[in-house]
Amino acid sequence: MTHFPAPRTLADVDEQELLDTVLPRFATGDDVLVGPGDDTALLRVRSGAALATTDTMVLGRDWLDEWSGGGDVGHKLVVQNVADIAAMGGRCTGLLVTLVADENTPLHWVADFTGAVADAAQEAGTVVIGGDLSSAPDGVRMVSITAFGELDGGGPVLRSGARPGDVLAIHGTLGRAAAGLLLLQAGTPERGADLVRAQRRPSTAYGQGAVAARAGATAMLDISDGLLRDGGRIARASGVRIDIDPEAVAGDIQALAAAVGADAAAECVLTGGEEHTLLATFPAGAVPDGWRTIGVVTDGSGITVGGRQHRHIGWDHFGSARAGDDPGSACGGPAGRRPDRAGPA
Amino acid sequence: MTHFPAPRTLADVDEQELLDTVLPRFATGDDVLVGPGDDTALLRVRSGAALATTDTMVLGRDWLDEWSGGGDVGHKLVVQNVADIAAMGGRCTGLLVTLVADENTPLHWVADFTGAVADAAQEAGTVVIGGDLSSAPDGVRMVSITAFGELDGGGPVLRSGARPGDVLAIHGTLGRAAAGLLLLQAGTPERGADLVRAQRRPSTAYGQGAVAARAGATAMLDISDGLLRDGGRIARASGVRIDIDPEAVAGDIQALAAAVGADAAAECVLTGGEEHTLLATFPAGAVPDGWRTIGVVTDGSGITVGGRQHRHIGWDHFGSARAGDDPGSACGGPAGRRPDRAGPA
Repeated sequence: MTHFPAPRTLADVDEQELLDTVLPRFATGDDVLVGPGDDTALLRVRSGAALATTDTMVLGRDWLDEWSGGGDVGHKLVVQNVADIAAMGGRCTGLLVTLVADENTPLHWVADFTGAVADAAQEAGTVVIGGDLSSAPDGVRMVSITAFGELDGGGPVLRSGARPGDVLAIHGTLGRAAAGLLLLQAGTPERGADLVRAQRRPSTAYGQGAVAARAGATAMLDISDGLLRDGGRIARASGVRIDIDPEAVAGDIQALAAAVGADAAAECVLTGGEEHTLLATFPAGAVPDGWRTIGVVTDGSGITVGGRQHRHIGWDHFGSARAGDDPGSACGGPAGRRPDRAGPA
Repeated sequence: MTHFPAPRTLADVDEQELLDTVLPRFATGDDVLVGPGDDTALLRVRSGAALATTDTMVLGRDWLDEWSGGGDVGHKLVVQNVADIAAMGGRCTGLLVTLVADENTPLHWVADFTGAVADAAQEAGTVVIGGDLSSAPDGVRMVSITAFGELDGGGPVLRSGARPGDVLAIHGTLGRAAAGLLLLQAGTPERGADLVRAQRRPSTAYGQGAVAARAGATAMLDISDGLLRDGGRIARASGVRIDIDPEAVAGDIQALAAAVGADAAAECVLTGGEEHTLLATFPAGAVPDGWRTIGVVTDGSGITVGGRQHRHIGWDHFGSARAGDDPGSACGGPAGRRPDRAGPA
């Protein structure tokens, strides 16, 4: 029998040693007037206003260690926060990063997480300006980012500006991250390595947020909880109805069918979360190059597919434990989250 | 036997219902250009730069439900974040609030937390501009705030500016929050209701941060992890030695002795965390009214009390599980945290 040495964990270092390991991974930038290590960061704001958003991932709920490493988690956390900045039409200018972890957390997990955050921040054209380290009871691990941004002559593009006559368009893919999760859940990741990668390491064309804003996007968000749920949020905030054209998403469904089957493929495209593709409404004729029209905005309320309400809406963080609930979509939401029943729009 | 109805929990509402309950509690302000409910907030920044900091509290580590209600947790979370803004010499301009909780979390806990955050934000002259709600596995609850601020003609006051010849001064109390925790741990809260309140609902004179900055403070922070540990951070960052005058803190110790005993009182004053009193260095003669000089800055390194190194330094988030560790200070740190051994400064 071979004995491996136990991996070093957070219990083997004190807070200062940990900071001394982590902080050199983070680059700095001209607009970071005070970086990590003091009570607060100080970030230059050139345009008179700052965008700010925060998003959290929890072990056992948003990821499982069996399926995602520390690097995957760090990468995804950056993407989902920076995508929110992009979805306002903005450019990300800085990140605060929080790690809450128990003492048994391996140091290599922390190093993988930190390295991926640094790399993904660089890809997004931004830097880590500070954060927080906290200990947690056994088995608890949670990571969080607050992202800052600025608008460079366009936006903010809210959810509430869609008007009847506008068209609905996306920049990027649909359902791939959810299909990848289905494969992980089924224990068949080899059926779609690219889909599993889309689940573990999503990507978003951040710069297209500002492109959409300058083109006159009337409403925008990124697809976190599924096309229907997030599209429904635009419909609700704007006081309009949105109808998805089934023909426009048929190719997205077809592309997933070989890996997960036709029915699950349709659910992934319509209700799969964590895709982080930008979803926006534009006046007809104003859709920028590289964007794809997938629906229309009309008078009314709610979101429909080919004029009909779909069975399932997408993913909800709470309220999924009520007795008698619809068992929900076949398509995977975030790891550990349960699908929510379709509700009134 | 009387039957009480089971309290409603997060499982009884969906995310939108929860948001509809929570959001009306939060006021708005003239500088909040986009508030809660969209992908990001948009906050006006008048001075060309924004302060930003984040701090997290974890159930079972930073609080116990037996000792602190949702209102206590919300209040303390605001105080510890806004105190960090004040400790740079800044004024808080907005808060992002994160709640991560399992479905069994009672709705009344959420309401108490939310209400206290709103009230404490108002006391601090600031508003909630957005946040994040996430579900968690059973038994996991975590709250986090990111605070933004601006400098109004003074600061930023870093930790690194203390110079030999400066004096060390505080605005506020020492050791009271830690003494209150000791009473809770001993099951004798009646021996010091005011101390227990200092533990549950700390307060800080936020405006004194800007006062100190304008008076020429050379270094500043708020006491989160204990006078010696936080003072040691100034010494380390500034490349100086700090010596606490035992006579200057004798009254603080005496004030706690009746409730917790003389030895524990001394430990609370020197190493007790969560006090959030502002601690700053000033050129001799520049200490503002209302501040109290408690030590001096000299050449050298580390922090001493009457010229001698103290046994214990204060509280550390990690590294407390090593075999053979000093059992640590008798004085309580944050609920659930273990004292760390004294290390080299």
